[in-house]
Amino acid sequence: MIARAAILSTGDELTTGRIADTNAQWIADRLFEIGVEVVCVLVVGDFPERLEWAWRQALERADLVISTGGIGPTADDLTTETVARVVGVGLVMDEPSADTMRRFFAARGLDPMPENNLKQAMIPAGAVVVPNALGTAPGYRAALGGKHVVVLPGVPREMKPMLERSVLPWLRAQRGGEVYLARTFQTFGISESGLDQLVAGVVDPAEGRISFRASFPEVSLRVVVHGTPAHAEAGLAAVGERLRARLGEYCYGEGPLTMEEAVGRALRAHALTLAVAESCTGGLVAHRVTNVPGSSAYFLGGIGAYANAAKRTLLAVPEDTLARHGAVSEEAARAMAAGARRAFGADLAVATTGVAGPDGGTPEKPVGFVCFALASADGVRSATHQLWGTRDWVKLLASQIALDMVRRQALGLGPHDPLLFRRR
Amino acid sequence: MIARAAILSTGDELTTGRIADTNAQWIADRLFEIGVEVVCVLVVGDFPERLEWAWRQALERADLVISTGGIGPTADDLTTETVARVVGVGLVMDEPSADTMRRFFAARGLDPMPENNLKQAMIPAGAVVVPNALGTAPGYRAALGGKHVVVLPGVPREMKPMLERSVLPWLRAQRGGEVYLARTFQTFGISESGLDQLVAGVVDPAEGRISFRASFPEVSLRVVVHGTPAHAEAGLAAVGERLRARLGEYCYGEGPLTMEEAVGRALRAHALTLAVAESCTGGLVAHRVTNVPGSSAYFLGGIGAYANAAKRTLLAVPEDTLARHGAVSEEAARAMAAGARRAFGADLAVATTGVAGPDGGTPEKPVGFVCFALASADGVRSATHQLWGTRDWVKLLASQIALDMVRRQALGLGPHDPLLFRRR
Repeated sequence: MIARAAILSTGDELTTGRIADTNAQWIADRLFEIGVEVVCVLVVGDFPERLEWAWRQALERADLVISTGGIGPTADDLTTETVARVVGVGLVMDEPSADTMRRFFAARGLDPMPENNLKQAMIPAGAVVVPNALGTAPGYRAALGGKHVVVLPGVPREMKPMLERSVLPWLRAQRGGEVYLARTFQTFGISESGLDQLVAGVVDPAEGRISFRASFPEVSLRVVVHGTPAHAEAGLAAVGERLRARLGEYCYGEGPLTMEEAVGRALRAHALTLAVAESCTGGLVAHRVTNVPGSSAYFLGGIGAYANAAKRTLLAVPEDTLARHGAVSEEAARAMAAGARRAFGADLAVATTGVAGPDGGTPEKPVGFVCFALASADGVRSATHQLWGTRDWVKLLASQIALDMVRRQALGLGPHDPLLFRRR
Repeated sequence: MIARAAILSTGDELTTGRIADTNAQWIADRLFEIGVEVVCVLVVGDFPERLEWAWRQALERADLVISTGGIGPTADDLTTETVARVVGVGLVMDEPSADTMRRFFAARGLDPMPENNLKQAMIPAGAVVVPNALGTAPGYRAALGGKHVVVLPGVPREMKPMLERSVLPWLRAQRGGEVYLARTFQTFGISESGLDQLVAGVVDPAEGRISFRASFPEVSLRVVVHGTPAHAEAGLAAVGERLRARLGEYCYGEGPLTMEEAVGRALRAHALTLAVAESCTGGLVAHRVTNVPGSSAYFLGGIGAYANAAKRTLLAVPEDTLARHGAVSEEAARAMAAGARRAFGADLAVATTGVAGPDGGTPEKPVGFVCFALASADGVRSATHQLWGTRDWVKLLASQIALDMVRRQALGLGPHDPLLFRRR
């Protein structure tokens, strides 16, 4: 059974730092889900000796080598000839691939096709073609030298569907009748290590494997269960329920789900409209809300009131409030939220005002001091938090808190004290 | 002289696909600038045998190994003990680092510090500490086994300043009297391949090396010149001038400079204030403007008028304009810009309205159809562009066009027709 894989990424663009190796991450993530362990990732530029070294190491350390890049038509595309040399196999022309290429060029009025393209149809004898629906270079997989080899192009939008459609089904079949089922819980308000402690002992390692991913300010938790289809499904339901109970209020949703999508679902479910009034987040809350397709159904708009004059004229924040408490105050936030709700005629309005930094902090209201308010038919709720970090972090974290306030209000949940930052 | 480097990235989060190895890219980019070639990147999880294999391979293939990750306080942080084992050197406690750690914990009221943290102060005998201003784990560099070794933490925001401040100056000195000077040109409105063609032949490869990086919607061009200080400086000035002339209006600035920073500089230089009125960009223009520290000096605020009612009441867009031309029209954009300029009392106001998608397109105004307007004391200018891509791309590209309009107006430049998208 294929248990251990090596990922090989080739291209000068990777070793000169022009692009990050996102292919390796994507492939590793897919392999993790089906229980294949990645023992190493090797990245080399387009040099024959380096490529040969990488292939020899990869073949020695793993049952399966997945390679991306180096299968184009030009002289510095060396992957296939390197594979052939390292495992000692001859190359043959795959005629169907050559025909597909000729048709690709003819359809674009580029015939006759430059002959160097045919290089891309040369594959190791006995290899199985992995079709490429989006480009000219096909990939292939082969059993060579007692190991399995998968060779794919480096362009992510070509590589991903090829792996997804042709390689993973084969790999799952190689791994027997077992299936791998995953569930992801999206959390906010708790750190990765806090989450690790919170769920300690909930899932026995024999039942499922848990992993975390922190993508500030969110941390997601994924559990993967494997076994026969019936066994895995029952197992996932059982561990899912226990995790859900333990995560409690920290979990704002399941599956790949952003906070702004969770907000959209909550607003739609209760037929509520939203407006925003932003000072320190400067448009970020509105930007995130409108990232969700169809958000125009519930989002009416926002007012970014950076200057005090705008807070007075557009949001009707009383002069007296600003003079007595300052623009960064819960009182100002409350007036902003109420003002935005009126101005847009919205069901809910959320407001932010604070010190994003790096300048503008005072001993009493240091950088990261942010006030929030949410206005609804029930009145106005507010809170102040002491956040931390650079300007972009403060903005992002503040936008997350504001969005979570909207979500909780829409769902009828009470306020929530996150562990991640101090309430003032 | 140090000519060839290997980069070693460790951590289960990399081999299970939870995060991409952006550290390796960043380091490779920095090394490229000073002429050090990256022969390979090796990525392994936190396993003693795998880490040892990676270190042996890296030390064999390169003069310099730069490692990130695996130097925290827990049992699965194995980097330093692996280095010691592979090169056969003892570990010593770095007392200043231990003291710094104790103070770090005490300052947060967390004393006594958990003893396992002291593990982070153990470094190979003879190594030089690389201070970590943002975390508890120091890094180090050492000459071991005839090679140079640099060990840094895996957290990017800790690693980057450590490499920048302590490692690169040392590495430049190691590379002898030659210096490597780089200049980056930030462009907008032209593709990477278009830029490649545009500057073809401008710089002789013997004079300097050119590379491109596309970070949608911007493409930057970097030229690196090396030699003696006087030679390199003169060379960079010469190729810089030729490139500047060839790039012309596509270049909006030099150095690491975002479009929003360029906008900020232009507004400050001419003492102008800005307001925005956003429909399809939904807060993104304001968000980007306010990402710049100190933007409150010129940014007055914005109105995100998603709903038509908001366009009428907050921006005074005439009912008749919306009825006759629709909310997505140059006429509406012009009224929005003029309305925002009045509402905030700003010198300049920019407006966007369009179809971000994926729904809402019509044959006449398909997804990606976006209208722009800029109001100033000179009156109102407007334009319509047909953009492409997914919702987030349309928003991002539209925000970029809007920001560039502001920049050009502030600098007194005329309108500019980018190659990247069609003007309607």
